[in-house]
Amino acid sequence: MRFGVLGTGMVGMEIAGKLATVGQDVRMGARQANNAKASSWAIAAGGSASHGTFGDAAAFGDVVFNCIHGVYALEALRAIAGPLRGKILVDVSNPIDYSRSPPGLTVCDHDSLGEQIQRALPETRVVKALNIVGCKAMVDASYIPGEHDMFVSGNDGEAKAVVTRIVSEWFGWRRVIDLGDIASCRGTEAFTILFHALWKVYGTPYVNIQVAARPKG
Amino acid sequence: MRFGVLGTGMVGMEIAGKLATVGQDVRMGARQANNAKASSWAIAAGGSASHGTFGDAAAFGDVVFNCIHGVYALEALRAIAGPLRGKILVDVSNPIDYSRSPPGLTVCDHDSLGEQIQRALPETRVVKALNIVGCKAMVDASYIPGEHDMFVSGNDGEAKAVVTRIVSEWFGWRRVIDLGDIASCRGTEAFTILFHALWKVYGTPYVNIQVAARPKG
Repeated sequence: MRFGVLGTGMVGMEIAGKLATVGQDVRMGARQANNAKASSWAIAAGGSASHGTFGDAAAFGDVVFNCIHGVYALEALRAIAGPLRGKILVDVSNPIDYSRSPPGLTVCDHDSLGEQIQRALPETRVVKALNIVGCKAMVDASYIPGEHDMFVSGNDGEAKAVVTRIVSEWFGWRRVIDLGDIASCRGTEAFTILFHALWKVYGTPYVNIQVAARPKG
Repeated sequence: MRFGVLGTGMVGMEIAGKLATVGQDVRMGARQANNAKASSWAIAAGGSASHGTFGDAAAFGDVVFNCIHGVYALEALRAIAGPLRGKILVDVSNPIDYSRSPPGLTVCDHDSLGEQIQRALPETRVVKALNIVGCKAMVDASYIPGEHDMFVSGNDGEAKAVVTRIVSEWFGWRRVIDLGDIASCRGTEAFTILFHALWKVYGTPYVNIQVAARPKG
């Protein structure tokens, strides 16, 4: 399995870094082919790490992580719909508008960024995952102590199973809850509003939740 | 301390019932003074339990629970702004529009029902609480096994302390997290979107969350 990572921000760096650390072939994609951060990353990561444009990274990966800031993700992904055809796209982004305080969402409730991306890329298997925690915890669940859960949403069961295996085996998520189809990511995207309140309360973005449920019947 | 409970639905019944069980003076309020459900409840509850209009219940209580369906709450509360003046209003409602599937919110992200109510009743001390769980769990946290948390939001610290004591001592909530001012209830109201997804996954509305956080520094 080969991996593409779209985005050279903190999230892209953490995810590409972790995948390289566990011995995977990773290509980091940036808007421009000669992006200095992507090139430095590839040199530092060594091995088979490489970099290129968003389209290069999408073409390279069997599984591609969307780590582009949520506000810009849809437009950037639409431009590389071709190379993303048939691929698993792990959407870790949230449609957060940080120009407002407290931060707001650009889409909420009746729709979600995950659905917008799936509609824009009907031949790509979009799986929403990892979007509820800060980037260090995305790739190392134990960065937040105690028991807490990860959620995946997507229309393709096989793609969700692949992503569940990746986040369980390499990123340390002990319990990954399949929330349902891609529309169910309305829940995890909307959760970011509670997440921002909790960040303020606890003074750290490294907060997460564990689900408790009453047994049926 | 005397209690008013606005609403004769399942939520109002659970909350009024529990308060009466722990020996408190409770008046249940309905749209009409001769509401049959409220009258039956008061007879069955016995003791000092009583019933009347929304305005009667608001006038009676030092602490008043808003258990009116979220879609109708604002208008009903505006009409009893007078008797609610100076009172603590525990808003357990959510702005859920069940006419859509999956259920949507009538207000989300940039505002919340809690804030709308506080703006409409500037002289009432609004505390959002209990709105993240099904009604049996509201008054008995152990109805959902395991550790999980309750949140309170409100502008008045003393009112939040009173509500925290009520839900801790009588309703069994072991950890009550002060989320911040009333605007912080955007988080718990938006959480209902994730809640509905979890309900579908677990096949029960009796799901809740426990917060895990990385210690600061």
